[in-house]
Amino acid sequence: MSAVFSSAEPFDAVDVIRRKRDRHELSDAQIDWVIDAYTRGDVADEQMSALAMAILLNGMTHRETARWTTAMIASGERLDFSSLHSPGGAQRPTADKHSTGGVGDKITLPLAPLVAVFGVAVPQLSGRGLGHTGGTLDKLESIPGWRASLTNGEMMAQLGEVGAVVCAAGAGLAPADKKLYALRDVTGTVEAIPLIASSIMSKKIAEGTGTLVLDVKVGTGAFMKDEAQARELAQTMVALGSDAGVHTVALLTDMGTPLGLTAGNAIEVEESVEVLAGGGPEDVVELTVRLAEEMLAGAGVHDGDPAAALRDGRAMDVWRRMITAQGGDPDAPLPRAKESETVYAPADGVLVGLDALSVGVAAWRLGAGRARKEDAVQPGAGVRLHAKPGATVRAGEPLMTLLTDTPDRFARAKEALDGAVTIAPDGSRPARRLIIDRIA
Amino acid sequence: MSAVFSSAEPFDAVDVIRRKRDRHELSDAQIDWVIDAYTRGDVADEQMSALAMAILLNGMTHRETARWTTAMIASGERLDFSSLHSPGGAQRPTADKHSTGGVGDKITLPLAPLVAVFGVAVPQLSGRGLGHTGGTLDKLESIPGWRASLTNGEMMAQLGEVGAVVCAAGAGLAPADKKLYALRDVTGTVEAIPLIASSIMSKKIAEGTGTLVLDVKVGTGAFMKDEAQARELAQTMVALGSDAGVHTVALLTDMGTPLGLTAGNAIEVEESVEVLAGGGPEDVVELTVRLAEEMLAGAGVHDGDPAAALRDGRAMDVWRRMITAQGGDPDAPLPRAKESETVYAPADGVLVGLDALSVGVAAWRLGAGRARKEDAVQPGAGVRLHAKPGATVRAGEPLMTLLTDTPDRFARAKEALDGAVTIAPDGSRPARRLIIDRIA
Repeated sequence: MSAVFSSAEPFDAVDVIRRKRDRHELSDAQIDWVIDAYTRGDVADEQMSALAMAILLNGMTHRETARWTTAMIASGERLDFSSLHSPGGAQRPTADKHSTGGVGDKITLPLAPLVAVFGVAVPQLSGRGLGHTGGTLDKLESIPGWRASLTNGEMMAQLGEVGAVVCAAGAGLAPADKKLYALRDVTGTVEAIPLIASSIMSKKIAEGTGTLVLDVKVGTGAFMKDEAQARELAQTMVALGSDAGVHTVALLTDMGTPLGLTAGNAIEVEESVEVLAGGGPEDVVELTVRLAEEMLAGAGVHDGDPAAALRDGRAMDVWRRMITAQGGDPDAPLPRAKESETVYAPADGVLVGLDALSVGVAAWRLGAGRARKEDAVQPGAGVRLHAKPGATVRAGEPLMTLLTDTPDRFARAKEALDGAVTIAPDGSRPARRLIIDRIA
Repeated sequence: MSAVFSSAEPFDAVDVIRRKRDRHELSDAQIDWVIDAYTRGDVADEQMSALAMAILLNGMTHRETARWTTAMIASGERLDFSSLHSPGGAQRPTADKHSTGGVGDKITLPLAPLVAVFGVAVPQLSGRGLGHTGGTLDKLESIPGWRASLTNGEMMAQLGEVGAVVCAAGAGLAPADKKLYALRDVTGTVEAIPLIASSIMSKKIAEGTGTLVLDVKVGTGAFMKDEAQARELAQTMVALGSDAGVHTVALLTDMGTPLGLTAGNAIEVEESVEVLAGGGPEDVVELTVRLAEEMLAGAGVHDGDPAAALRDGRAMDVWRRMITAQGGDPDAPLPRAKESETVYAPADGVLVGLDALSVGVAAWRLGAGRARKEDAVQPGAGVRLHAKPGATVRAGEPLMTLLTDTPDRFARAKEALDGAVTIAPDGSRPARRLIIDRIA
């Protein structure tokens, strides 16, 4: 019917929705139009959500996903780091990391300064947390004085002077994605691999990084609960990045149990600083070093030894300059929760399971995360673990400490932990495969 | 996430959407809530459209569809005809007909007065046309003075006095459906059998008729292009009606070619009056009589002879009273289009095909239909056919006359007719199966 009366628009939203609904491929022109018209408001929210549901249920081809990504990039500005130069005068390589989100995932904090040690600029545009996985900016904001918002000019200056910046993505990058993500969040259309992949990659490609390493989490605490889906997402994103000329590699990593011994904000900064001081939990160190190696290799730096740069203080030096440049005081005491409650081991044995999702939800309920974008987080809240899977525990020994400023939250946090802990009286120690696969 | 923070709502829209998205059944309570909350505005349009797309692609069980229908009925008022009595004092039976819409489908016009002849009250709440199938109210509004809007009291009085009323459905019946239908129309989610069935049946059940005969059209000019889908829709609606205590029967009827020799507004009234005068095209008479027989049988009247009531003027008497009761003048000349253009047969032979959709779109483009609810229709516009499939035609003989007040519309109307006519030089005469099946 829509073809009968003329309109200034080259397509009709209902025709585009029906095409995908009826399992046909969308043309490049249809994709370009629908993203642009949605950004302009000429395709309505209720039309885009119906299209998103059709995409979720019927999928998109690689060509469609690539075009969708390009159209979202075209909806906004693109950053350009080609003016960054190394001391020797050559153009300075850039590398960025993106994690699909996990419990206790503070890796960006030690990683960004670590990679910058080797002359690779790290423009890490990050987000805030929503739900049970914390946000990098929320963690850093627990450092007194630190600010997440920088202008493009400030970001560029800091990249030149310090080599690493972790800041909020400006509203100018892929505004179509920003609008679409908010819509998907309230319409049950988040879990579509083509839409997840294009959402992440449109921002990262628009950001202008030369190398991108993706940390795709798999497990209960991750967005992707099963490996096949995580692999599909990783492959889709690697293809999108490569098509756009970004050197892109993905690691599939375990999120069945939290990363490190902390899930929260200030307590994760504290643990990150331990890693930057050459210590910290083994899994956090292992993943940080491995991601740094991938970023350096992608950026063409083959003679760096990231593990050494953690041990000898070079990464810590960049960290201190990075925090200072954004108004933070790296020496200021971090906020602490007002109240704590201990969870004890119920039996003797080997801790064989500590469920990531349960710990994440507990930390969130204690105040470390937010349910709505406009909520504030408690910087001191979270969960501190005293044992990780593989450890021998004794009945009555502390397993974790729950932290919050609002003690009425303990009850619901403990509910979330119901069944989270598995102790085998004579269990064999489980071997954790932290890095499951590499996809390039 | 939604379970963490309390809300006055018993469900979360995203949870309900996800459930259907992931191919689970919705509970009665979830269905009741989502329809009620959508009517109240607490479930947003973009959420309902995502749910509608998930329903379209994943289906609903019979139980879900029945509950969805009940919830839409509960969103508004229900009419009650139990106070209508026959002259003998017994409660007067009521019967209604609903057609899924076709080209040239003016059957309601002769049918409603015809059934009323036999003491069965016919409360025919109708709609306006959108797209290539005309609306019954648009056709009747071409009669000078006739008005479609009646209060419930006026409708009841007319049913008592005349026995038949064709009028606009009040806004009070199934308001959830009204809102949902408008949404589906702009989001590519019309073509979902459970939603089509519940939309039609919620209004018909709320209307309070005792017997309902459904005319489910099949063919190019129908909403359902193929018989299997039409059959599924018919079966779904018959089950919904029967569950609700309405005696419900469906006929599957052919819509591969237009009904009768007219597609428009005034010209369809003219043809209906011919039928009421005992003449008119054979297919219109056949379908009118058959539907009348079904309505009478459902209402418990087994000794009526509808064909005789067309021939002997009894149906015409009720028609005249019915039109007069709503302010119309049954003797006033009907509006005529200012301009006409003739389409000629391109060759000698037997007319074996005259595509319903093409004729419907041509009539619509000539001004007989509307593209948007707020558009006006031209009462005189449409297509008058001079031959139907099965007729022998000669090259250069008039096949149809296009009628409009705005001659710039002829070109696009003729475009719609491209390929609509098939003439076989030595073709055998196709046998039309007008009534394909009966589903009870």
